[in-house]
Amino acid sequence: MSIGIALIGCGTVGGSVVDLLTTQRNRLLERTGGGHLDIKHIVVRDPARHRERPHVHTDWQKAIHDPAVNVVIELIGGSSTAKEIVLTALAAGKHVITANKALLAAHGRTIFDAARAAGTTVSFEAAVAGGIPIIKALAESLAANQITAIQAILNGTSNFILSRMAESDATYAVALAEAQAFGYAEADPTLDVDGSDSAHKLAVLAQIAFGVSPDLDAIEKHGIAGLDASDIRYARELGYTIKLLAEAWSFAGNQVSLHVSPVLLRQTDMLAQVRGAFNAIRVRGDAVGEALFQGPGAGGMPTASSVVGDLVDLACGRTSHTFATTQLWSDRDRGYRVVPSERVESRFYLRVLVKDQPGVLAEVCRLLAVESISIASVVQHEAVDGHPEQTVPLVIMAHAASAGRFRNAAQAINQLATVIGPTVCFPVAD
Amino acid sequence: MSIGIALIGCGTVGGSVVDLLTTQRNRLLERTGGGHLDIKHIVVRDPARHRERPHVHTDWQKAIHDPAVNVVIELIGGSSTAKEIVLTALAAGKHVITANKALLAAHGRTIFDAARAAGTTVSFEAAVAGGIPIIKALAESLAANQITAIQAILNGTSNFILSRMAESDATYAVALAEAQAFGYAEADPTLDVDGSDSAHKLAVLAQIAFGVSPDLDAIEKHGIAGLDASDIRYARELGYTIKLLAEAWSFAGNQVSLHVSPVLLRQTDMLAQVRGAFNAIRVRGDAVGEALFQGPGAGGMPTASSVVGDLVDLACGRTSHTFATTQLWSDRDRGYRVVPSERVESRFYLRVLVKDQPGVLAEVCRLLAVESISIASVVQHEAVDGHPEQTVPLVIMAHAASAGRFRNAAQAINQLATVIGPTVCFPVAD
Repeated sequence: MSIGIALIGCGTVGGSVVDLLTTQRNRLLERTGGGHLDIKHIVVRDPARHRERPHVHTDWQKAIHDPAVNVVIELIGGSSTAKEIVLTALAAGKHVITANKALLAAHGRTIFDAARAAGTTVSFEAAVAGGIPIIKALAESLAANQITAIQAILNGTSNFILSRMAESDATYAVALAEAQAFGYAEADPTLDVDGSDSAHKLAVLAQIAFGVSPDLDAIEKHGIAGLDASDIRYARELGYTIKLLAEAWSFAGNQVSLHVSPVLLRQTDMLAQVRGAFNAIRVRGDAVGEALFQGPGAGGMPTASSVVGDLVDLACGRTSHTFATTQLWSDRDRGYRVVPSERVESRFYLRVLVKDQPGVLAEVCRLLAVESISIASVVQHEAVDGHPEQTVPLVIMAHAASAGRFRNAAQAINQLATVIGPTVCFPVAD
Repeated sequence: MSIGIALIGCGTVGGSVVDLLTTQRNRLLERTGGGHLDIKHIVVRDPARHRERPHVHTDWQKAIHDPAVNVVIELIGGSSTAKEIVLTALAAGKHVITANKALLAAHGRTIFDAARAAGTTVSFEAAVAGGIPIIKALAESLAANQITAIQAILNGTSNFILSRMAESDATYAVALAEAQAFGYAEADPTLDVDGSDSAHKLAVLAQIAFGVSPDLDAIEKHGIAGLDASDIRYARELGYTIKLLAEAWSFAGNQVSLHVSPVLLRQTDMLAQVRGAFNAIRVRGDAVGEALFQGPGAGGMPTASSVVGDLVDLACGRTSHTFATTQLWSDRDRGYRVVPSERVESRFYLRVLVKDQPGVLAEVCRLLAVESISIASVVQHEAVDGHPEQTVPLVIMAHAASAGRFRNAAQAINQLATVIGPTVCFPVAD
């Protein structure tokens, strides 16, 4: 079927979508089996910046209500105007394609209900992990599986910063400045480096994998902002690499825990090898075992690859079937409940900055023992530049226990008069 | 839609398909949107070995022609009886799902023409890379792209053997025996270790990516049978890991070269990290850039995950759209031509076993220079156990030149009276 498109938002991704649709008309005609993908409107805030393109204006209402338009591609991001645009499009009987994870994470149910009521569809391959086709993989390819775990690098900015810190021993501030200079980080990088962006994407994946719609507050998140370069160095000495992972774990049959945190991964782990602005998702399914998907997590053309993939699906006639059978953000309850991650067991890495006095190590160890946490190794490092005088870092690798126990122990340790600053406490994936 | 299934072949994969369909009825009912996936017939050679299962018999004709059957799943492998079964099923108006790469590589056109004539479909996610959803990724998710390169580990047996050789410095014979003991290699491993299996799978991927149907003879292949442990060791010393790669490269606009060969990969390359019986496929597309898919390449449940994924696609109604628009193995010519890989340029690793005499190195270097091959490094190693007395191995890393030039140089070197045995010559991926 031929498709008339209203593109709302024409930044990096939108511009690449336009370029792909215009330069590859013949290819796409072939891939859709003869369906044309025609841009009817490009809606932007400042048309003067898009003089070289046709069909550019500022009126999204007009674009949506044009009878020649049957698909609205929302690429403006955020969740206020974007929500209004998407709901207006659906109410007008138009299909929607969006790359907006924040919108889906916050308002997925409202949007999908609106699409069902209107008899239209919503596609969102580009909303998670840019060019990596993880949405279709989870929703279609792995449909025979119950997903039991997801471990993912979903924020390219954070991964770029961590990679730079690991490769050049740069501080967080220097690596962030580099990321900004290379265009991998926004001027205000908060949503990337505080874990919010990863949490939004994890919420979307969790809806597909488990049918849950967690409150975003229910996703515990700990970003990389202010990460100390020494933790990356100590982790490396122990054979680990620190990555910001978004994780979903199902356990006890129907419980699922979602969290975002720096995690120590063995250097030989495939996820530990994912460098720069790349994303990767490792999925565990009860039939397939483990599968890993890696690729560009952002960028104009990679993300456009996913947006146009959604267009091809729509033109080929697949989308309506997928939308109807997956029943995302619907009444259907698959029985999973989101629970706090405190019961999830793993090993942990702790770093405690202590006064260089006798008896401090004994105190710290005692507080771990109170929570039945068993110690695998302790290294008392030399004092490092930038730390207060006469303090030393204790680096502790602990055997597996629940996250809740580690949280309690860290809180107790932080109360010690001999401890300076909060205890650093990251899960270790083994 | 509900589906009546005739399963032809019930070995490891078929048994897992039956287990998945029977133990996960509710899950699959949910995933298909209410369509039942009912096994009506299980056709096997020896029913006595399948007493615990219902619907088992030996008559595939009866199974196919049962009006309650609308899908035939072919899991017997090979390309003689399997071809007859598939063509009979299609002629009878039944959809076909197959895991048979050898059949598709040899008879794809005949089979797909038959399906088109009968108005049915053929699905084959399980035919390449077991549980990894690479077929759907190439045919649907990445539809916006022209694929420009594929580099893939597609044979788990070979990868297991290479991993064992690298990790334990085992000889090929010892590693093969281990693979057989662990069930990763057949009693007759020929098709795995000579590169044939990888070539079949590469031919299937090349059809999707480039629309070409190469004669299997047109895929140059060099397997790992008899690989010398010293090459793995020398490669490691240079910072490389040897993997059996199936590669497709497009160049000069519309030419594509297909080959299977041991390749030296940098140890930091994600493909170099793929261990044991896992498979991985790295795809380069002109929009997405590079994406990598990794997972179990064989095994009952992982492969069943793909077979049942195809069943879900069919029951959801997606398959007919995909089959109609992708036009695989059809008249449609996308303009690509398969050409010999001799024009493909890369660096190469060479090992020459020479008599320990003055002037030999000069002779070897002269023959490389004749082909305008520039040398990056030479190491003359100590003589090793198992080599003839008074011989030494020369290990040469050469700068990029065409494969054809390296072939010529190796042939010339092999003629030297001071050279013992054929020159080892593997591409280096940098």
